[in-house]
Amino acid sequence: MKKTYDYIDQHIKRFQEEMFNLLRIPSVSTNVANHKDLVEAADFLSNRLKEAGLDEVTIHQTPGNSIVTGIKIVDPALPTVLIYGHYDVQPEEPLELWTSPPFEPTVKDGKVYARGASDDKGQSYTHVKAIESLFMTTGTLPVNVKVLLEGEEEIGSPNLRPFLEKHTDYLSCDMVLISDTSMFADNTPSITVGLRGLAYMQLKLTGPNRDLHSGVYGGAVENPANVLCEVLAKLKDENGVIKIPGFYDKVKLLTTEERDAYKALPFDEDAYKKHLGIDAVHGETGYETLERASARPTLDINGLTSGYQGDGAKTVLPSVASAKVSMRLVPDQDPKEIADLFIKHVKTLIPATIKAEVVEHHGGHPAGVDLNFYGLKAASAAFEKVYEKAPFYSREGGSIPIVADFKQVLGATSILMGFGLNSDAIHSPNEHFALKDYHRGIKTSATFLNELATTSKD
Amino acid sequence: MKKTYDYIDQHIKRFQEEMFNLLRIPSVSTNVANHKDLVEAADFLSNRLKEAGLDEVTIHQTPGNSIVTGIKIVDPALPTVLIYGHYDVQPEEPLELWTSPPFEPTVKDGKVYARGASDDKGQSYTHVKAIESLFMTTGTLPVNVKVLLEGEEEIGSPNLRPFLEKHTDYLSCDMVLISDTSMFADNTPSITVGLRGLAYMQLKLTGPNRDLHSGVYGGAVENPANVLCEVLAKLKDENGVIKIPGFYDKVKLLTTEERDAYKALPFDEDAYKKHLGIDAVHGETGYETLERASARPTLDINGLTSGYQGDGAKTVLPSVASAKVSMRLVPDQDPKEIADLFIKHVKTLIPATIKAEVVEHHGGHPAGVDLNFYGLKAASAAFEKVYEKAPFYSREGGSIPIVADFKQVLGATSILMGFGLNSDAIHSPNEHFALKDYHRGIKTSATFLNELATTSKD
Repeated sequence: MKKTYDYIDQHIKRFQEEMFNLLRIPSVSTNVANHKDLVEAADFLSNRLKEAGLDEVTIHQTPGNSIVTGIKIVDPALPTVLIYGHYDVQPEEPLELWTSPPFEPTVKDGKVYARGASDDKGQSYTHVKAIESLFMTTGTLPVNVKVLLEGEEEIGSPNLRPFLEKHTDYLSCDMVLISDTSMFADNTPSITVGLRGLAYMQLKLTGPNRDLHSGVYGGAVENPANVLCEVLAKLKDENGVIKIPGFYDKVKLLTTEERDAYKALPFDEDAYKKHLGIDAVHGETGYETLERASARPTLDINGLTSGYQGDGAKTVLPSVASAKVSMRLVPDQDPKEIADLFIKHVKTLIPATIKAEVVEHHGGHPAGVDLNFYGLKAASAAFEKVYEKAPFYSREGGSIPIVADFKQVLGATSILMGFGLNSDAIHSPNEHFALKDYHRGIKTSATFLNELATTSKD
Repeated sequence: MKKTYDYIDQHIKRFQEEMFNLLRIPSVSTNVANHKDLVEAADFLSNRLKEAGLDEVTIHQTPGNSIVTGIKIVDPALPTVLIYGHYDVQPEEPLELWTSPPFEPTVKDGKVYARGASDDKGQSYTHVKAIESLFMTTGTLPVNVKVLLEGEEEIGSPNLRPFLEKHTDYLSCDMVLISDTSMFADNTPSITVGLRGLAYMQLKLTGPNRDLHSGVYGGAVENPANVLCEVLAKLKDENGVIKIPGFYDKVKLLTTEERDAYKALPFDEDAYKKHLGIDAVHGETGYETLERASARPTLDINGLTSGYQGDGAKTVLPSVASAKVSMRLVPDQDPKEIADLFIKHVKTLIPATIKAEVVEHHGGHPAGVDLNFYGLKAASAAFEKVYEKAPFYSREGGSIPIVADFKQVLGATSILMGFGLNSDAIHSPNEHFALKDYHRGIKTSATFLNELATTSKD
């Protein structure tokens, strides 16, 4: 890799200037007025992919913003990586809080400040420059590469899944590489190996056919708000264990290796508490905070509504009480199965005096990377070579819907190789990205592709 | 009483016409445009009280509508009754649902239809005509009588309590007589011997310092909505018993006599359930529906609010969850003491991870009439003589704030002697009052005053 690393070092100023040019395009996907900027960003990337050496570079029209693809098949026997990124950005508002113009990249203290610097133009462009560097120094790529850059991630990727479904053969791959997450901390490379899924329920309880006077009827008529609280209180015990029968049946217990990976993470619980304004953390007995926040399933009330909610007092016995309740899921829980178990169990808790309606909103599958997956090993080796330290394996508590889409449509596991930091102020004023991580990101991407060619699949 | 009854029978047509004249005055207290009508109603009543034979008839100015009083002290050694009524009425809207004009009294099927017919012009005017009939047939009254008619009951009697406090000597009495409630059913006279009090609390729980992403933080941070449900669920057990220590300490248990009075009431539970659209009644184990609704204290959630309450799903872990909770109280519970017990107990249920704020809204004292009170015996005897059946003793689940005011300011127990029916459509279109009950009400009022003179106070 020495020749490739040297090439990257020699061309890093140009690589930065190219990223800055991409950052100058205000490709805000939420604003229709920016449509021409999204077209310009797609054109820009299409040209850079061609220059980098990819074949079949195409700008695909969708009902929304275009999807740019490029492909290089060097040998069908080699692994194929689909590299995903997005060229749209969040709106720049509130403008007055930016210390430099959001679409004029400004370097300060080794960081470039601009909307999209970290999320995701800067991060995803590392792969384009890694491909160029490999081509220019070896004349080929070590594995097959497909690149897919979309322009609607910040508005929920409405056209990505249909595109995947339409082009399953064209996009078939052994894994997906995504750089749209963060490292655990500065100089602390990490790979996200788990994302939680979601089952989101709405529970509506109805008692009497109208709001009643709590004086005239209170005591003699079941109050659906009281029942709602009783039912919801029964869904978890005092140890934070969810009491829905069957809920844990498919939960993969954390392995010793996984728990050790958690323990290795540099986590400051005092800073975490201070940041949230809480005196103590709280969760399932027997687990640590990071495990609770990402590796264990949850049941949280997201909303409660019943009766009188204004100022002062109104003596009403409400007709209706409802709650929104969501459960975060971990591998291998299935959102539909969990929703069914929830409905079945809740119905056993409702007294005959109350009518219950349980609605399932939307769900999402959890995602996990087997720690023995060869793609993960290659990614880990690449980080170790460039950053000179092994990456941490971390899980995230939330969901990234496209990861589930890639798994479900293409059958491919995603390697989430973030180069940014949680402190990069993505979605906020003064978004930035460290130029040293842009530089190391390009090297890590190139190294990953190189490692992948020789990593055993076993 | 025969002479008095004959007088009433002979003059009943005129008595009706006088009531109709009062009903023609649109004395709607919620509407400032009706101010002159309230003045007219007060003048009308002032003149009728003078004609009936009372002394010192006065129209007292208040910051709002006037209070009309009249007094007749026949012998300081005799009991003194303060007769309360109100001459203001509810708005007539929705006008289109009236089958006859709301301020043109119309007789159909033996009932007069007009706003205020039952609540409270018709009912309270019975006493004015009883006083006249006694004066005209005996030349005096059997006991001392003070009459107080206000014009702001439908807007919460804001000036009544200050008036009572300013005139405690002038209004001193042994009991208050109020005809502003209903009989239990047609031809089923009843006396309300209990009203519940109220303690109304607001509970606000705060977890993290802002709404959090339920994916990123769920499981590791205590959710105040979940805690709210757990806390509220612990306030009652599965038998409907309130679990606040000390809550029942001052609750007077129902006597056998009182429970028998409940059993004697003609109550149709199936009709009650059908009216409310419920499949089953529900409440404290060991008590019947009417007892639960009026003789036992309650704890009802009046409102719940937390997190996301709109359509669809939002994956928020709320920062704040709050509830409004009210407790109906029975003799001799004290609203302030109960509020303190609630606050003290709830605070023991809040985990260290959550900040709790408990606010007491407003309270109200319960009211009860001792079944051995001589005023009640006289009222019962009066009903029995006129209706030829003993009245039921019933309790109401709600509160009548003026009853607590009379008790607290004047130290006087109120005798709630209703002549109307629950089906009189008070506060609704087509309010009405049966002329036979107006007639019997006048006789019952006169008989009550007569009985009171000779009923033993022991």
